[in-house]
Amino acid sequence: MSSRVLSGMRPTGRLHIGHLEGALSSWKELQTRHECFYFIADWHALTTNYADPSQIKESIYEMVADWIACGIDPEKSVIFQQSRVKEHSELTLLLAMITPLSWLERVPSYKEMREALKNRDLSTYGFLGYPLLQTADIIMYKADYVPVGEDQVPHIELTRKIVRRFNNFYGETFPEPQPMLTKAPKILGTDGRKMSKSYENAIFLSDTPEEITKKIMPMYTDPQRLRRTDPGNPDICGIYYLHKLYSAPGDIEMVNTECRRAGIGCVDCKKLLLPKLLEALAPIREKREELIRSKDYLEDVIAEGTKRAAEVAGETMQEVRSKLGLTH
Amino acid sequence: MSSRVLSGMRPTGRLHIGHLEGALSSWKELQTRHECFYFIADWHALTTNYADPSQIKESIYEMVADWIACGIDPEKSVIFQQSRVKEHSELTLLLAMITPLSWLERVPSYKEMREALKNRDLSTYGFLGYPLLQTADIIMYKADYVPVGEDQVPHIELTRKIVRRFNNFYGETFPEPQPMLTKAPKILGTDGRKMSKSYENAIFLSDTPEEITKKIMPMYTDPQRLRRTDPGNPDICGIYYLHKLYSAPGDIEMVNTECRRAGIGCVDCKKLLLPKLLEALAPIREKREELIRSKDYLEDVIAEGTKRAAEVAGETMQEVRSKLGLTH
Repeated sequence: MSSRVLSGMRPTGRLHIGHLEGALSSWKELQTRHECFYFIADWHALTTNYADPSQIKESIYEMVADWIACGIDPEKSVIFQQSRVKEHSELTLLLAMITPLSWLERVPSYKEMREALKNRDLSTYGFLGYPLLQTADIIMYKADYVPVGEDQVPHIELTRKIVRRFNNFYGETFPEPQPMLTKAPKILGTDGRKMSKSYENAIFLSDTPEEITKKIMPMYTDPQRLRRTDPGNPDICGIYYLHKLYSAPGDIEMVNTECRRAGIGCVDCKKLLLPKLLEALAPIREKREELIRSKDYLEDVIAEGTKRAAEVAGETMQEVRSKLGLTH
Repeated sequence: MSSRVLSGMRPTGRLHIGHLEGALSSWKELQTRHECFYFIADWHALTTNYADPSQIKESIYEMVADWIACGIDPEKSVIFQQSRVKEHSELTLLLAMITPLSWLERVPSYKEMREALKNRDLSTYGFLGYPLLQTADIIMYKADYVPVGEDQVPHIELTRKIVRRFNNFYGETFPEPQPMLTKAPKILGTDGRKMSKSYENAIFLSDTPEEITKKIMPMYTDPQRLRRTDPGNPDICGIYYLHKLYSAPGDIEMVNTECRRAGIGCVDCKKLLLPKLLEALAPIREKREELIRSKDYLEDVIAEGTKRAAEVAGETMQEVRSKLGLTH
């Protein structure tokens, strides 16, 4: 059996190039070598969007269109919707019984995220428990690898701890999943901060060439470079990061050299980037527009994937229930 | 529509006369006037018995046999098994998203139970969340009434708070259930403490007349009454409590008077009680023995009840998912 990969994404809005370069390009590559399960984490989206979940529903088809447009192939990967596989909630409940509270309280991202999203009330039982739901998501499919960023490694560590505890109580059942560090190239938003939908600084996969141009041209570069004649520092410039992803090697080298000696100005540098960026994003945008128009196809993809996921989940839960004596 | 009642019991061992007089006699009476849903709380049993769940499975048929033997009528009441209705876990997960942690931490029984069961590690996420699972159990059936003892009233208050929050976010969906205080006559164990399986002081519904006799004859009475000639105090005597439940009014009155003036000794008092107690428990024991022999019948009862419960749960969850936009 080939090794299995599991990952998911919350449907909380349109995807941007941070998602493309951070996660989706890894997902695309992984599906050529592994059996991949990629899921729409709509229950996870509720942990932060419970007060107004309307956006979740709207985002689901958009997100799947983005995935497919970015190269996730429904023929190769299982694309499914979390809330349609009820077993995820059942396994979460069972894992809750054996998971010490302190393990969840100590997850580093718990306090951080509460801080970051202070305007919403996140002191909920569900928010504290979301790494447990994540654990259920992963081990339901006995995934070997979970592609994650550096900050998510503690979650996989927690999953491994819970797996050991489960296997210890009820007998060998789940493998310990391994985190698979994805190379996430640095991408800054138009304001120089991390690209994020909530900062309103993102270049979306759905943006038209005009919208992208309007975002790129006034985009933050090196804030120390006030005049055209000042030398710049590409190492802290969001435009340079984009060059590294979308421009030809010769151009990247040229920008890197010339910027530092004021040989090229920011406007010219952006004009050099733009056609390359537009060229890379155009097929994705066109594909996603085409997909969004055929909702039936997207629904078929989700329904088919969910059916496959539910088969695996059903088998896993049969084994779990039997080990816990909850069969009849 | 008649009003609906919901209650459940954890399958963690044999039932004793405390269960009979405390809960089951109320359940029996309620089924004549309400639509009653009584469930086998096997997931709840896991909150305390997760390390060795084998007892849960063994106890399920025993418990249902006890219920029916005590007069719970499967033709009148819906008897079902919680873990077979997966919707309970789904609703719990959804409620978790909107429930502040502090609401759960403040439930009075939370700290108490952790103290009482110190030998088990109950600092789990599932243990903290069990009033939330209870809330899901209740509102899944839109129950109007929940028969509870005094100590469980705060749980129903919590359920009502969560219902208000849910209805407030997503629109009127669930009624606020009312606690229905059951008259729980005081029953002491053979050692003078509260009757409880874990104290090993209980008279079980499965006990033979010989076993009951062996438990009653040396049973604690008024600890101040050391000699036959000392006057006793029936108000603190477990035997007198049993007289009040099982003896004729004249005998109860006689014991109450004579004990206080040393007119009757503890041995004679017990001998007066015994035939009445045995007479009351004999048909229950016989009936439960007969039922235990026909496991197929018990399984049919549970399967039929679970089917009915699952219908209602399915309807409720369809409404809930639609209100949260989690439909497809």
